[in-house]
Amino acid sequence: MTADIAKVRVGLDERSYDILIGSGLVARAGAEIVDRLGKVRAMIVTDENVAAAHLEALQASLLHAGIEHATHVLPTGETTKSFAHLEATVEAILAARLERGDIVIAFGGGVIGDLAGFAAGVVRRGMRFVQLPTSLLAQVDSSVGGKTGINSRHGKNLVGVFHQPRLVLADTDVLNTLSEREFRAGYAEVVKYGLIDKPEFFVWLEKNWHQVFSGGDARKQAIAISCQAKADVVGRDEFETGDRALLNLGHTFGHALEAFCAYDSARLVHGEGVAIGMALAHRFSTRLNLASSDDASRVEAHLRAVGLPTCIDEIPGMKPTAEALLTYIMQDKKVSRGALTFILTRGIGQCFIARDVPSSEVLAFLEQSLER
Amino acid sequence: MTADIAKVRVGLDERSYDILIGSGLVARAGAEIVDRLGKVRAMIVTDENVAAAHLEALQASLLHAGIEHATHVLPTGETTKSFAHLEATVEAILAARLERGDIVIAFGGGVIGDLAGFAAGVVRRGMRFVQLPTSLLAQVDSSVGGKTGINSRHGKNLVGVFHQPRLVLADTDVLNTLSEREFRAGYAEVVKYGLIDKPEFFVWLEKNWHQVFSGGDARKQAIAISCQAKADVVGRDEFETGDRALLNLGHTFGHALEAFCAYDSARLVHGEGVAIGMALAHRFSTRLNLASSDDASRVEAHLRAVGLPTCIDEIPGMKPTAEALLTYIMQDKKVSRGALTFILTRGIGQCFIARDVPSSEVLAFLEQSLER
Ligand SMILES: NC(=O)c1ccc[n+]([C@@H]2O[C@H](COP(=O)([O-])OP(=O)(O)OC[C@H]3O[C@@H](n4cnc5c(N)ncnc54)[C@H](O)[C@@H]3O)[C@@H](O)[C@H]2O)c1
Ligand SMILES: NC(=O)c1ccc[n+]([C@@H]2O[C@H](COP(=O)([O-])OP(=O)(O)OC[C@H]3O[C@@H](n4cnc5c(N)ncnc54)[C@H](O)[C@@H]3O)[C@@H](O)[C@H]2O)c1
Ligand SMILES: [Zn+2]
Ligand SMILES: [Zn+2]
Repeated sequence: MTADIAKVRVGLDERSYDILIGSGLVARAGAEIVDRLGKVRAMIVTDENVAAAHLEALQASLLHAGIEHATHVLPTGETTKSFAHLEATVEAILAARLERGDIVIAFGGGVIGDLAGFAAGVVRRGMRFVQLPTSLLAQVDSSVGGKTGINSRHGKNLVGVFHQPRLVLADTDVLNTLSEREFRAGYAEVVKYGLIDKPEFFVWLEKNWHQVFSGGDARKQAIAISCQAKADVVGRDEFETGDRALLNLGHTFGHALEAFCAYDSARLVHGEGVAIGMALAHRFSTRLNLASSDDASRVEAHLRAVGLPTCIDEIPGMKPTAEALLTYIMQDKKVSRGALTFILTRGIGQCFIARDVPSSEVLAFLEQSLER
Repeated sequence: MTADIAKVRVGLDERSYDILIGSGLVARAGAEIVDRLGKVRAMIVTDENVAAAHLEALQASLLHAGIEHATHVLPTGETTKSFAHLEATVEAILAARLERGDIVIAFGGGVIGDLAGFAAGVVRRGMRFVQLPTSLLAQVDSSVGGKTGINSRHGKNLVGVFHQPRLVLADTDVLNTLSEREFRAGYAEVVKYGLIDKPEFFVWLEKNWHQVFSGGDARKQAIAISCQAKADVVGRDEFETGDRALLNLGHTFGHALEAFCAYDSARLVHGEGVAIGMALAHRFSTRLNLASSDDASRVEAHLRAVGLPTCIDEIPGMKPTAEALLTYIMQDKKVSRGALTFILTRGIGQCFIARDVPSSEVLAFLEQSLER
């Protein structure tokens, strides 16, 4: 491993693994895999966009390392996280006669990571898998922590397993083919880690976000710090029974907005929903006299600076009522037995889990936000 | 709990649970569940046969205990273990708005246990579930140990998760509505535990099998000893990386026979395949000079006494070649990288895992068996 590669260790006892972050990791994937997992066979699961831009490079790398492999290319988009595609992926892995010790390589954004990870988790009751995240969101969030899954008719991510990868390879160069909009959306999750409990990271981002967007060392650093932040939370709470809920900062509002838009990514992608959700969470905390309005304004200013939305009315064609949004919030899976759980904050980098937030307070806040 | 109920503890650290075995447990299911798991909500998953005979009793029991519940009735038979039924079951559980702490109740034979357990394992990445096994096979085998799953186009049970139940309630009375043939098939697995490492249990079965078939205390005892035997193995090897393979006694041959019959239960049900497989495993061990031919004959005699088949040619319309069977054996998932693993024996109750059995030996043995 060269010195340019950052390494983050996810500590989960016998399920521990490394995240490598840096330039050229797709080209070195084969060698890294053989080094760490031995001479396995592999199934690459990817989507059409990623395949068009990067599949040849990955295949060449595996070939060079002597890793026999097959490839399963899925359509792009959130609707790929379905039972039908899960079944097709599982059958493709079995058709390739892979065994428990062989690997599934998730080569794509969060959609591919979630689906391929779930497939790996259920083929022969669990086979090994490797994440090669290609979107910023996947590199800083979805590829770390072992949550996998698909969507149900009744909501997003309601079906899946906890299944940790054996290795995560985040190649910072592949992000160059990602659209500006998708990059920004992933960046919202980077900001999130600063806001949860790393105020100094938030300050660093305010100064260095231009470099993060343009690539190079700052990008690698931002991804590594984000992965470390997520790894720390996951290490404390692998199965999401407590602390891991902090990662939902901005997500309760964000999910409601996504659901209201019927997950139409033309109008709103996840990270944009999270950006608006984080701005709302800070303003809501201000309203509840928990945090200063200066902090809320500063969060908003940074999100705006990078081009992310912070207000509900920035979503094209979006005219929800407060009641409608509250209904979506109550349906969100983080709502346990009708009690509203929110991630609130005492200021930048001082988030906490607030249980039993009265829904009347949420409603009043939403009414005020929508009136502006 | 009354004194008539036998209890077996499956020791798996924080995933430990009790198996209760005895008369009237369906009627007491609601009370036992509330006692142990609190006031949960429930989804009963069952099949048409079991629903016709016992659903009302279970529903009344839950109602009486104040357990709000819905019911999902599936068609009977092995083909129910499919992606399509998994999806329908998962969506039904979500439609009922069950949360992680609520329960899925698998109320049926091994088919229902495997499917409902898998569904419980993936809804919200794992919710609690309770096994109420209604076939003898399910009571002594499939409901214990946490293996769940469905079938793939490429083979049986190739897709699933390890997901332990929170409680198993084996009502010995419900077996009275089971067909004689299904009861016998389950009995083959009871015999299996004796043959693996409990010679005294095998002797007891030779003497008491009539009582086991007719019900009452001997039946309860046989089920409890079987559950204890399985619990011991599972406790040593939850994820089937070693010892648990002993439970496959008779199954390598058995699965090949089932596959050759295209899983047509009119010709062969699983337990019958296992009975023939166990007889073959003992004869094969004799041929390899591992065990005495007296022991092999005694095993055969007992299986015949209860009405189970012991020879391949007892399967109606079954004329496989040795080569054909070997092909199915090589395809079985227990075959790792082409090396043949068999459960062989040094005599009754003295089984062991034999790795690297030469396929030429297996072929020669099968040729001899088919010539007789
Ligand atoms: N498992 C978790 O812990 C977790 C956490 C957060 C989000 N998620 C899930 O992640 C998903 C969102 O992830 P996402 O934003 O990566 O979505 P995505 O996978 O749909 O990727 C976004 C778009 O970018 C394209 N793309 C990806 N990499 C590219 C590249 N290098 N070059 C060109 N195009 C590229 C994709 O084809 C897609 O069109 C959601 O389904 C969400 O539920 C999961
Ligand atoms: N998970 C495991 O560890 C494990 C172990 C062994 C077998 N299995 C699986 O178990 C399945 C076989 O189980 P099975 O033999 O119970 O099959 P099954 O569930 O199909 O039941 C057999 C038949 O008996 C009927 N039945 C069940 N209980 C009844 C009752 N009380 N009264 C009347 N009819 C009743 C069913 O409707 C069915 O027609 C297979 O799919 C096998 O792969 C799983
Ligand atoms: Zn997110
Ligand atoms: Zn069996």
